[in-house]
Amino acid sequence: MVAQQGLEITTRGRGSLDITAAVNAVLRDSGIGCGIANICVQHTSASLMVTENADPDVRRDLETIFSRLAPDGDPAYRHDLEGEDDMAAHARSVLSEVSLTLPVAEGRLQLGTWQGVFLWEHRSHGQRRRLLVTVIG
Amino acid sequence: MVAQQGLEITTRGRGSLDITAAVNAVLRDSGIGCGIANICVQHTSASLMVTENADPDVRRDLETIFSRLAPDGDPAYRHDLEGEDDMAAHARSVLSEVSLTLPVAEGRLQLGTWQGVFLWEHRSHGQRRRLLVTVIG
Amino acid sequence: MVAQQGLEITTRGRGSLDITAAVNAVLRDSGIGCGIANICVQHTSASLMVTENADPDVRRDLETIFSRLAPDGDPAYRHDLEGEDDMAAHARSVLSEVSLTLPVAEGRLQLGTWQGVFLWEHRSHGQRRRLLVTVIG
Repeated sequence: MVAQQGLEITTRGRGSLDITAAVNAVLRDSGIGCGIANICVQHTSASLMVTENADPDVRRDLETIFSRLAPDGDPAYRHDLEGEDDMAAHARSVLSEVSLTLPVAEGRLQLGTWQGVFLWEHRSHGQRRRLLVTVIG
Repeated sequence: MVAQQGLEITTRGRGSLDITAAVNAVLRDSGIGCGIANICVQHTSASLMVTENADPDVRRDLETIFSRLAPDGDPAYRHDLEGEDDMAAHARSVLSEVSLTLPVAEGRLQLGTWQGVFLWEHRSHGQRRRLLVTVIG
Repeated sequence: MVAQQGLEITTRGRGSLDITAAVNAVLRDSGIGCGIANICVQHTSASLMVTENADPDVRRDLETIFSRLAPDGDPAYRHDLEGEDDMAAHARSVLSEVSLTLPVAEGRLQLGTWQGVFLWEHRSHGQRRRLLVTVIG
């Protein structure tokens, strides 16, 4: 059985948003109890991650770490049409994940207690982001 | 057809363990010959990787590289409740992968000759780690 | 329904090649309209990424960034049997992705307008790379 549904999420600029409940809502609609869910962000300057859902400082520190790995406005970049955050956003997206597949049972994502699924906006300004969720079971 | 089975693996502290045979054992139990297997670590300070299974120095060097990308005890971190390795472990988990989907044929993972699947412990001390393997075919 | 097909791609040394059309051709052959496609590189020194398909400078800048994160010939590496690019290639493969799962609808990958799927060669010299595409729907 296959179910597929789009999600649109408006971000508020750089930072991550917990989308676990939104994905679980798609799972409920699908009626699929056991299998996998694939979540795909249809953009190249945002991404997905699974990380701690309790202390927001974890995600703050991830911003700090990723800002070192792929700094804004590096003079070595050639691609800077859309500003200082443009190339950094593409690189941070590649260093995390554009598409994520997770286990499903009893109609819900099977995550650990402290895990959440986050949409990670890498552009400075808020964007309207399209995601596609595909459930197989 | 869908099959789902948990795996519990006790790590010995920071480092990686080859879990290819354990995943292939789940595949044998599932009876599914052709399809995909999703492996998901239900923790935020351990992860999965596919890398070389021959020379253990590859995984030693990966520790060296990841210890530069997300160093222990960085004074910029705010999240350090569980010690110097706490935030570094979360970041290394995001830089690698919490969930991995691999092809299956003839009831086995279809990896290249030199590829193995590894559970990567990022905490200093050994932990009991839960994984969930979902097979679709 | 499950379909599985190998792809062989000869790279021209370090750099990335757009394989979106090759994957879509496998999807056409499979006859599967809606579901997911898993693409897996059966090597430990090449990888996959989804990134911008328009300005090739994005992928040039990604090389620049990854060459800092996992430099060639670092004296700290122990694994250097196959040359200065050997360990760097393994690390860049782990930092990106060996296996990628993407949504399928109407018999095609469901990517955003500016997204392409790229095979990323991390060795200095061209190689013959085997990929396995598994379609579930």
